[in-house]
Order: sequence, then structure tokens, then C-alpha cells
Amino acid sequence: MFYPPEPPSKVIKLPKLRISWTEYGRRLGVLREHMAEKGFDVYLVTSGVSIFYFSHFYHMVTERPAALLVEPDGKPTFMGPLLEADHLRHQTPLVGECLTYLDYPGEKQPMERFTDWIKEKGLGKARIGTDNLAGAGGAMGYVGPPLNELLPDAELVKDGQFVWGMRLLKTGEELDLIRESAKWGNLAHSYLQEYTRPGLYDVEVRLMACLEATSVMKKTYGGEYESVKGRFVSAGFRGQVGWKSAMPHSIDVNKPIREGDVLVTGAGADIGGYGSELERTMIVGKPTAKQEKMFKVMCRAQEAAAEALKPGNTCADVDRAANKVFRDAGYWELVRHHTGHGIGLEGHEPPYLDQGNPQPLQPGMVVSIEPGIYELGYAGFRHSDTLVVTEDGCEWITYYPRDLESMTIL
Amino acid sequence: MFYPPEPPSKVIKLPKLRISWTEYGRRLGVLREHMAEKGFDVYLVTSGVSIFYFSHFYHMVTERPAALLVEPDGKPTFMGPLLEADHLRHQTPLVGECLTYLDYPGEKQPMERFTDWIKEKGLGKARIGTDNLAGAGGAMGYVGPPLNELLPDAELVKDGQFVWGMRLLKTGEELDLIRESAKWGNLAHSYLQEYTRPGLYDVEVRLMACLEATSVMKKTYGGEYESVKGRFVSAGFRGQVGWKSAMPHSIDVNKPIREGDVLVTGAGADIGGYGSELERTMIVGKPTAKQEKMFKVMCRAQEAAAEALKPGNTCADVDRAANKVFRDAGYWELVRHHTGHGIGLEGHEPPYLDQGNPQPLQPGMVVSIEPGIYELGYAGFRHSDTLVVTEDGCEWITYYPRDLESMTIL
Repeated sequence: MFYPPEPPSKVIKLPKLRISWTEYGRRLGVLREHMAEKGFDVYLVTSGVSIFYFSHFYHMVTERPAALLVEPDGKPTFMGPLLEADHLRHQTPLVGECLTYLDYPGEKQPMERFTDWIKEKGLGKARIGTDNLAGAGGAMGYVGPPLNELLPDAELVKDGQFVWGMRLLKTGEELDLIRESAKWGNLAHSYLQEYTRPGLYDVEVRLMACLEATSVMKKTYGGEYESVKGRFVSAGFRGQVGWKSAMPHSIDVNKPIREGDVLVTGAGADIGGYGSELERTMIVGKPTAKQEKMFKVMCRAQEAAAEALKPGNTCADVDRAANKVFRDAGYWELVRHHTGHGIGLEGHEPPYLDQGNPQPLQPGMVVSIEPGIYELGYAGFRHSDTLVVTEDGCEWITYYPRDLESMTIL
Repeated sequence: MFYPPEPPSKVIKLPKLRISWTEYGRRLGVLREHMAEKGFDVYLVTSGVSIFYFSHFYHMVTERPAALLVEPDGKPTFMGPLLEADHLRHQTPLVGECLTYLDYPGEKQPMERFTDWIKEKGLGKARIGTDNLAGAGGAMGYVGPPLNELLPDAELVKDGQFVWGMRLLKTGEELDLIRESAKWGNLAHSYLQEYTRPGLYDVEVRLMACLEATSVMKKTYGGEYESVKGRFVSAGFRGQVGWKSAMPHSIDVNKPIREGDVLVTGAGADIGGYGSELERTMIVGKPTAKQEKMFKVMCRAQEAAAEALKPGNTCADVDRAANKVFRDAGYWELVRHHTGHGIGLEGHEPPYLDQGNPQPLQPGMVVSIEPGIYELGYAGFRHSDTLVVTEDGCEWITYYPRDLESMTIL
């Protein structure tokens, strides 16, 4: 008798590319415990990222209001534009009813539809916890009556920080996705470095690296992967080239890369909606003594910050550790921002590693560590790595080379 | 005697790549007239795009609050993170004072800094018009005291729609930038179509087209161009490939392009912060009779909408004209969204071409016209073009071929 092999999809064990349905269920459980504690009859989630956090449904946020209505039992209800209904059914089994309006502003305004739906569920006099009393964010010129005014008999309670609190400490599943993201960021950055040469515009190098890395990622995962946010895997410079490397967030630069330029990069990937952050300072050609000195001080500041990233310390302690290195080296005047920020479903999220933030560090916090120095008219120096706070210190999730020799393009 | 030619930058007349300082000045004048009418002593602009609209300073919006303070005379004052100070000075001569805090949350919270600065200017008891009473948007987990509570002796007045009203009718300069954007969108879409073939992932085709078009754009403009928003020129599919073409905003798809697929594309470019929208339905291989029928009905709906786009009609009339074509063809059940939206500094902005919007059309409104039909499990059909309302009708700004033969990839 002939026994055929198992089909590939059963024998190849791919890394998990999304949060499990079990974990989404656990999140909903935590929210419901919170609802019971606060006496909320129902919870209204309006932030696009938070809707994803509880449902695995991600959508492009526009002027069209959308929300998740979480009752004490059963699957949550989605309320939003018709445009998203099929998309939602394809993306997730975790949502129950899907109540839609044709479009914004509509013959009946979406908030009035939300009001009707809430009343039809018998929640017109409910105590409703929400991240937004108005029911809609107000993007792209949106205008509408605030939901709390349309529901005068209900009690809408602003509860903006609860979900951020849940998102603050990453679980094992979240860490797995962030680690997987870091691998792809590493590949994309390798291409970026490989393709960097004088004469090319930084955006050309960026797109070449994105194309190569995305192509490899798509072929590696095959049908198992869909980008949640449409960001795939990327690496680039955001205009931090030559003297404009001295401007973090400079967006673009009007000249090609040249010999002698200092470059500040960035790379990451979207795995199940989660990201990582990898940034490097690279030098085109043999570094000058001044470049070498600034580069090495920046590296020491990053190491000092990582050293301070541990339970028992606060967010402020991490920033102060990096700042001390810069002060001692006489570079305090060249600092333009704090040491780092949380990262996960969004590129920036709490906790912020800032000298004014007394928040204690806890295991599971995932942050960028990226102290930088910027001399206007000359150059900027910043590495960024993604680290997670552990029981007794921290672990580096990104792992690209950091030393000057590796970061020199000859 | 030898007369050398003028240097190239003086003889070559490039299209203007940004709004003139004069027009920015005029905008400020309009805002100040409005302030006088409303009795505002000062105006506080907190939206990132609106800050750009009045100052030509664009920045990546994060958790860090930023605002423009417009007094009745002199250059506006910027209040924001230190990170942006050098960037602002490089981008614009139109801002006066630049008041900065080191970072968020800071040893003193940014809103408390804003409060100090406003008081130091003698505005602690002023009547302040603003787009945001809280003074900060609240992105990325931002937390802080609302500005209006920190300034109990001042009167902050929410005035959210005024700037949208200014932005609604585009000036000649704005139209020039949108037209220039459309040219590059056309080029990028040409590459996209050229590179589309079975076996490639849509995101690979997208990145190839973006790379080619961006490279040409950078070389064409040379040092004259910097992308305001970092978006350059692009064309892609956003996952609307094969059966997923039936899901507008589907973001990604987990399989390569195949023979027989219907594809829905998108292209545009960032010129001085302004954009255009060009979308096309393309078919890989010889269209079936059903594809041909749906394609042609969609085209007729777009033409009917354009026909209705003229002064004397309302936004609702345009949507109704497209919807009538779909109803008459028996496709009403396949409609998932309204006919279009305004476009300019943002990808979606007022006016919304929706059957529920009674707003009269006026010359200078720039909109997308993009009625679509979507059959779940089969395919979606949508072209989008950017048009401007004129004195006696409308003008198509995007100009890529629309007919089935041109949109067939063999």
C-alpha cells in the first residue's frame, strides 16, 4: 500500500503570524472583568488599533466612524461603514453582528445610526465605558453630533487609558510576533546597506531594499501571510542623509547620497499587526575622527540606557543614563529627544523613556532604545534597537551589527 | 568678450513645486479677518495638516503636542518638540518664534509649557479660537491636562470647521500642484500596468513601479524637489487582486496575481503636500462577458457622476447620478460606498459626494469620482479620477486611459 506524504501545509511548521484566537478571547475577558469592576453595562471601542486589539479586524481609518460594542457576553458587535463588512468577515471569526451604514455623511448621520443600534439593543439607558465620548474620531473633516448628546439617558464614561494599560505589557505571543518582525527588519536593513552607494537618492535605495525584502518575505510565507496594515517589510532613511542626518524626522532630502555622508536608517516589518524598530547610523567612506568620536559616544549612550532598562528602575532612569553619557562627553547641547518609546501595535506607544516619566519598568514592556546626538549643519548619530524588559534586566530583540566598522560603507 | 550662459537654475523654468509665500500670507490674512469677526484675540492651530496649511511646515505627527499660535500681527509662533525646531527653520521662513520643550511627557508636561508661553505673551485672559480645546490630539497614548483647564481665565472657543472651509475651494496655485501630482501618478500607473503579470505578488509590482517612477521624478526635479510628506510618487493595488478586488481597502492579499484576475489600482504623488487620485480596474487576460458588462456599467456610472459635477448641483446629485446607473443595471446590491470625496492636502477631505450631503457644488472643489461595484467572491470594478468643479461644469485632472481594451493586460 502506498502512503503519500502529508501535504506541505501540515508538515512545515511556520512561525505564528498572528495572535491566537485564544489570546484575543483572553483580552476580551480582561476587558469584561474591567467592565464589571467599573459597573459598565457595555464598552464602546472607537480607536482603529483598539478595535483590532480585541477583534483581529484591522481597517484603514477614514472619516467614516467605526466602533466595536462589547457586551458582557457573546461576540462583540461591529458598527461601521458597509465598505468594511466583507473585509471584516474575511479577516476574523471573532465578531458577531456587523451593523453597517452605506457611507458618510449618509441620509442619516452615522452617529444617529449608532444611537439607533444601541437603543435597539436595549442599551439606551446603559452605563457605557468608552475611549471616545463623541463616538467618532473626527478625522478627514468628519462632522457629526457627539454620541453622548444623542444618548441623553445613557451614561457615557470616558475610560481612555484602560486599553493602553492592557497593551503596556506584552505577552509571549506578542513577543513572538515582534521577534519575527525583527528578523525581517534585519533582512531589509541588510539589503539597504548593501544597496547604499554614492549617486543614488536615499529613496531609491529604500525602494530597492523594500522590494527585495518584501519579495523574499512573500515567497517565504506563501499563502500564510497577509500584511495586516499594508506595511510588509521596509527599510529606509526618511531623509536623514548627509547634513540632514542631523534632523530626526526630516522626511526627505533634495540630493543623492555622497561620499562622506552620515546616514540614519530605519527598518521593520508588519507581522500580525506588530512591529519592531531597528535604526542604524552608517557612514559612507572612511569615518573622520570627529565622526568616529560622535558615533562611539552615541553607542555608549545606547549601552548605558540598555543597562538601566530593568525592573526596579523607572523610565526616567533609562533616559537619565543615556543623557549622562552625552553630558559627560560634552554633547548635551546636541540632544534633540528622549531615549525611546514603547512599540507594539503602533510605532510609538507607552511607555515613553523620558526623564520626566516616573513609571516603573516591568517585565514585558517592549521599547526602542535610541538616544541620539545631532549637530546642525554637520550630522546626526542614532542607533535604535527594540528591547524587552525581563525579570532581571532586558533582552535585545533586534540584533543588527552596531559597531563603526560594520556600519562603514566603503 | 565672452558671455557665459545663465546657470541652468535660471533658464529652466520648472513647474512650481510648492505654494508661494504670497499665498501662505494670503491664507494668514483670511484667518486674521475671521479672528477679527469672531472676536478672537489669538488663534491656536493644533492639527498637523492645518499647521502646514498656514506655515509650510510639515511634520510627522506623534504623541508630542505641537501648535501654531497666530496673533493679529507678525509671524505665527510655533510651540512644539525640540526635535522639530531645526527642521522647521529649514522648511519655512514664515514662522517667527519657535518655542520648544525637550520631549514628552517631560519634567514639565507640554501643555503646562504651552500654558506658560501663552501667559508670557499676555494671552492668559485672551479669547482663543482653536481647532482643539485640549491643545493636543492624543495620539499614540498621549496623556495630559486639557489646555482649556490650564487656562481658566482665558476663553477657548472650539472653531473646528473654519480651516476646512478655507481648504474647500482650491486656488490656482493649489490646482497647479494637484495637476503636477496627476502627471506623476500617470507615470507611476504606466509602470504599474507595464510590470503587472501573472506570478508576481501585487506588492512586488507596486514597489517596482514606485521605484521607477520615484527615481525618474527625483532625477527630473533634481535639487528643486523635496517630498513634503515622504510619499513621493506611488502606484499600487492595496490587496485588491482577484476575488479580493471585491473588497475596497482590503490592504493585502495572500497570493500572487493570476491570469483572469481583476485588479483595482491606485496612484498619486506628493507635490508640495498636495495629492491626486488615479485608480483603475485592470483585467489580466481576455475579459469574460460578465467582466466586460460590469466594467462598462462602472464606466458609465463614473461618466454620469462627472456629468452631474457642476455648479447648480449638490454633492448628493453626483452620488445619485452614479447610483442611478447602478440601479438601472440591476447592480445596486453591489454598491459598497458613495461616489467620491474631496482631495487636496489629505487623501480624503470635504466635500463628500454622498447622497446624504446637500452641499452645493462650487468652482474650485476638487474631488475623486469613483463609483464602484463589488461582487463578493468574484471581483470589484472601480475607476477613480480627480476632477475640479469649474464655472460651467468640471475638468478631469487625471487622464489615464479608462476603456476596457486599454485596461486589459495580455
